[in-house]
Amino acid sequence: MVIGDGPPPDAAIDPKLYRTYGMVPRVRTSSRNDILDAALQVVDAEGGADLTYDSVAKQAGLTKAGLMYHFPSKEDMMIAVIEHVLTRWRSELEAELGVPLEETTLAERVRAFVTFAGEGGVTRGEFVIFFETLRRPALAGPCRQYLQQWFGFGPSTDPTPLMLTWFAANGMWIAEATGIVEINAAQRTALVDAMLRMVGGDER
Amino acid sequence: MVIGDGPPPDAAIDPKLYRTYGMVPRVRTSSRNDILDAALQVVDAEGGADLTYDSVAKQAGLTKAGLMYHFPSKEDMMIAVIEHVLTRWRSELEAELGVPLEETTLAERVRAFVTFAGEGGVTRGEFVIFFETLRRPALAGPCRQYLQQWFGFGPSTDPTPLMLTWFAANGMWIAEATGIVEINAAQRTALVDAMLRMVGGDER
Repeated sequence: MVIGDGPPPDAAIDPKLYRTYGMVPRVRTSSRNDILDAALQVVDAEGGADLTYDSVAKQAGLTKAGLMYHFPSKEDMMIAVIEHVLTRWRSELEAELGVPLEETTLAERVRAFVTFAGEGGVTRGEFVIFFETLRRPALAGPCRQYLQQWFGFGPSTDPTPLMLTWFAANGMWIAEATGIVEINAAQRTALVDAMLRMVGGDER
Repeated sequence: MVIGDGPPPDAAIDPKLYRTYGMVPRVRTSSRNDILDAALQVVDAEGGADLTYDSVAKQAGLTKAGLMYHFPSKEDMMIAVIEHVLTRWRSELEAELGVPLEETTLAERVRAFVTFAGEGGVTRGEFVIFFETLRRPALAGPCRQYLQQWFGFGPSTDPTPLMLTWFAANGMWIAEATGIVEINAAQRTALVDAMLRMVGGDER
């Protein structure tokens, strides 16, 4: 192991070692991502458990101290999990758009969201994290920033068609992620087509 | 106090007294409703706390033992809170319909739901309870029964317009209850009108 390239093995057990020797820990992304995926699996499971150091450490195959090395407070961990969810959503939406966010209109972003939401790919775990975060003001920052950046409905024009479509797309992924409804392939195609028509126009 | 009309004062402190004397407790509805309202206030508050015996007892002005007299297990309490929420929703929807549930069509029930959801009267606390319950299989029964009874979309006909409207109405109340969007009076009217048009027809 190259010194400085990720924590030495002991650091995963005792994060204080770093401070003792004045080292700055560099965490490998893959390991951090693995932990965040494990956290999602904890809430994703049937009868999903709450996110605690114990439940996440167990799912990730780490000691509690090893987990606390990555996330010194539970709030750090929660923020990281929601950022993890939002990063995936943003990259799916950007792939759908095919152009940088700054060059898009609200209508195009709503259309991309309809397609993304219509794919049924949002997990129960992602739903739990998104809404758990929204209801905790201390954690809501990243969610609100994402919503404002992608779906900030201004007051200047009539927002009804776009807002209605956005509500419908949200209702659809939430209903699917929570298991309220099951949608077959034909229904999915018909729903997405109807939503895309609601956005209106093919102007770019 | 008339004997048998509600628990004697001591029973609120020690529910075992009932068993000792072989009495069957009769709980006054108002008191039970007050506790359930208090439980909603706990999760409704900014930065809403989790529903625990301690948080609910504190909000309701009861001792923990007094609360446990009403709800011997935390699961009993959670089921009662969701039933409390669903009872309110059902009675709002029934008032909107004006005729017994059995005499209504799915389209009429969706239309009633649009009006109810469009009033913006669902609280953050109700949202938290509804979705917390949905994600816990042991607690999900009452929610699924409500959804099946009111909004069971059968596979026989094309459900697209009704389902889409139902998704949009759900997306709207969820967005408002969680504070994702603010909707002014003109927007609200325009959104509800558009949703009612989506349900289509004025057939009864």
